[in-house]
Amino acid sequence: MSCIIKCSPIPSASFAISETTENNINWDTIINLDHGDPIMYESYWRKMGNKCDITLSGYQSLSYFANVKNLCWFLEPKLEEEIKRLHNLVGNAIVDDHYIVVGTGSSQLIQASLYALSPPNEPEPISVVSAAPFYSAYAEVVNFVKSGLYKWAGDAHNFVKNGSYIELITSPNNPNGVIRKPVVNGDEGILIHDLAYYWPQYTAITSPANHDVMLFTVSKSTGHAGSRIGWALVRDKEVARKMTKFMEISTIGVSKEAQLRAAKILGMICDSCLDPTLDNFFEYNKSVMIERWQRLRQVVKANDHFFTLPKYPLQYCLFTRSFYETHPAFAWLMCKGSEDDLEKLLKGHNILTRSGKKFGSDPKCVRLSMLSRDEDFNIFLQRLMVIQRVTNAN
Amino acid sequence: MSCIIKCSPIPSASFAISETTENNINWDTIINLDHGDPIMYESYWRKMGNKCDITLSGYQSLSYFANVKNLCWFLEPKLEEEIKRLHNLVGNAIVDDHYIVVGTGSSQLIQASLYALSPPNEPEPISVVSAAPFYSAYAEVVNFVKSGLYKWAGDAHNFVKNGSYIELITSPNNPNGVIRKPVVNGDEGILIHDLAYYWPQYTAITSPANHDVMLFTVSKSTGHAGSRIGWALVRDKEVARKMTKFMEISTIGVSKEAQLRAAKILGMICDSCLDPTLDNFFEYNKSVMIERWQRLRQVVKANDHFFTLPKYPLQYCLFTRSFYETHPAFAWLMCKGSEDDLEKLLKGHNILTRSGKKFGSDPKCVRLSMLSRDEDFNIFLQRLMVIQRVTNAN
Repeated sequence: MSCIIKCSPIPSASFAISETTENNINWDTIINLDHGDPIMYESYWRKMGNKCDITLSGYQSLSYFANVKNLCWFLEPKLEEEIKRLHNLVGNAIVDDHYIVVGTGSSQLIQASLYALSPPNEPEPISVVSAAPFYSAYAEVVNFVKSGLYKWAGDAHNFVKNGSYIELITSPNNPNGVIRKPVVNGDEGILIHDLAYYWPQYTAITSPANHDVMLFTVSKSTGHAGSRIGWALVRDKEVARKMTKFMEISTIGVSKEAQLRAAKILGMICDSCLDPTLDNFFEYNKSVMIERWQRLRQVVKANDHFFTLPKYPLQYCLFTRSFYETHPAFAWLMCKGSEDDLEKLLKGHNILTRSGKKFGSDPKCVRLSMLSRDEDFNIFLQRLMVIQRVTNAN
Repeated sequence: MSCIIKCSPIPSASFAISETTENNINWDTIINLDHGDPIMYESYWRKMGNKCDITLSGYQSLSYFANVKNLCWFLEPKLEEEIKRLHNLVGNAIVDDHYIVVGTGSSQLIQASLYALSPPNEPEPISVVSAAPFYSAYAEVVNFVKSGLYKWAGDAHNFVKNGSYIELITSPNNPNGVIRKPVVNGDEGILIHDLAYYWPQYTAITSPANHDVMLFTVSKSTGHAGSRIGWALVRDKEVARKMTKFMEISTIGVSKEAQLRAAKILGMICDSCLDPTLDNFFEYNKSVMIERWQRLRQVVKANDHFFTLPKYPLQYCLFTRSFYETHPAFAWLMCKGSEDDLEKLLKGHNILTRSGKKFGSDPKCVRLSMLSRDEDFNIFLQRLMVIQRVTNAN
């Protein structure tokens, strides 16, 4: 496992905090940091120009099938190849003794995992838990069609284990970036590892993950959220077969166009790590993350600690061969002041974020995306600085 | 609504039935007519060459969003435009007072419709019915996660109406090509019209369909099953909103690549109907369907009516301005002889079909795809001729 790293200039516009006042900043534009729309990555892909172009002809990919010999019969062979190549290069997951199941984003793969792992003939649905603060969509994804196979049972910390259950482990965690392990630790626990953010731009790769079911998505690894491509690495053949069955029933497979483009994009990322004439994808975007987090922490520190942000440990990254602390895709911002509803406070200043309540946590916290456009991130920081100064003074 | 029609040569290889004997045909290759894989369409799209090429750059379509102003926020505006253009040109559905919801194929749209139309807070799930023979996947799609919102209740003919229910109406019907109306006719019936095959290559367009929820898919209209693109035309805003919500929770929208390519393909089909220098898509593929059905009927008639096929009425097609009888995408073949399991009989000769049992009907029937490759269709006909001759003689 090795890579050649080419350093990249920090692409964001510089921003002088000291010159900002309440009057000379833009308060009108709505800055939406509620969703994790990964538009930040557009600058890297624009730099790549037409190197990732893919042309599809009208007569290509008509069939439902991609490879009838594969257990996951709708998985494009080229995508399978590039997924394996990328994991082997980055070293963030063991692929060699796992089956790959492709999905329409990782939301569908979560459902497929639940379908495959739930006992099929129990009178009661199996409980699905995750440690708070947990990804806000989990409860809805688990419960929306009132399945008789599985049901959401909330915060894993409060779960009284009594027989089998499924625990969703998100690491680094969405919303708060923490590296996670299972918390219930019951004998009959079935684990699903959501590793959407276990990539070198966000966190140190400390060892290759090697779990029974591991979920990844291009949305957060490459920035191509519009493609709706995720994949699962699944150790057990029967579980992989059932997950494939879920995909077959729910959507008869996964778009071939999206798979072929994802293969091209993942291939380009691998090439960028090996070819010194290209901007290394992970180094480039890691630089952007570092700069954004530095600036956010600078703003938060500047005014008597009205807000706080989590701290992350420094860890050695086997991929970049350097020490790195986690720079999550979301900031988990907490208000230390008297404000009880931080989402509401920020919304009053046209900044949309997601309340801690939605993550099974405190409304004094919000989750906000760190992957917005540069312009939006800059306006957000300007407003945040003034908000904390003004609110603190009142 | 008008179109210029350019006649096309029949593209299939000619095939002399009288010369075929048991010894000189290929019995080894497995001919899979079980799935409705629409590979037949490849010949048309190959003729179009690079006219439908679409190139996607690495920096395109990163966002989850396609149009935040649209109720269906992940629907590509170009796809919406081409869907409307095609329906208006063909005249097979009213689009102007309907919302368009895009889905990952029509399977996902069926689930989204059920989610949107089921009463949310009833103690018992609503019954979902369809008249036998019904599409074999309906039962599985409705029941696979044991939803508490809806449950499969089988053949609509046997349904004792008692309060609300959902009826799925497939017209032309899969598997047997019959034009359908609701059969339950209860006061509290909620109807979903699956119109995947209501296109001029399969049947006469007798009037624009104008129902509350109508489902279409590129798989069967253009042949691009690998794209996983379907759409719903939905009259009620709240239902469209809930269907969009289903897509949001289950897959956070629909692949942008597949949508953009589908837009290109649908646009090309419209152009082919208006530009006399192009092969008219519908006329070309209608010719193929007519020729295949003629040859199949010829084989079936040739040997004392061992098999039978449904008859379809001749109807005036407003689109082609000519009389046309339905030429379905599937043949619903029935064995009149003493054989009780037609699927098994054909499987014994390496022809894979789907038993009538799976459609809530008779195992003396099978559904077989009429959309295979020419070579496979030719081998199938050769074998069928010998099978009925030999089996009849025994």
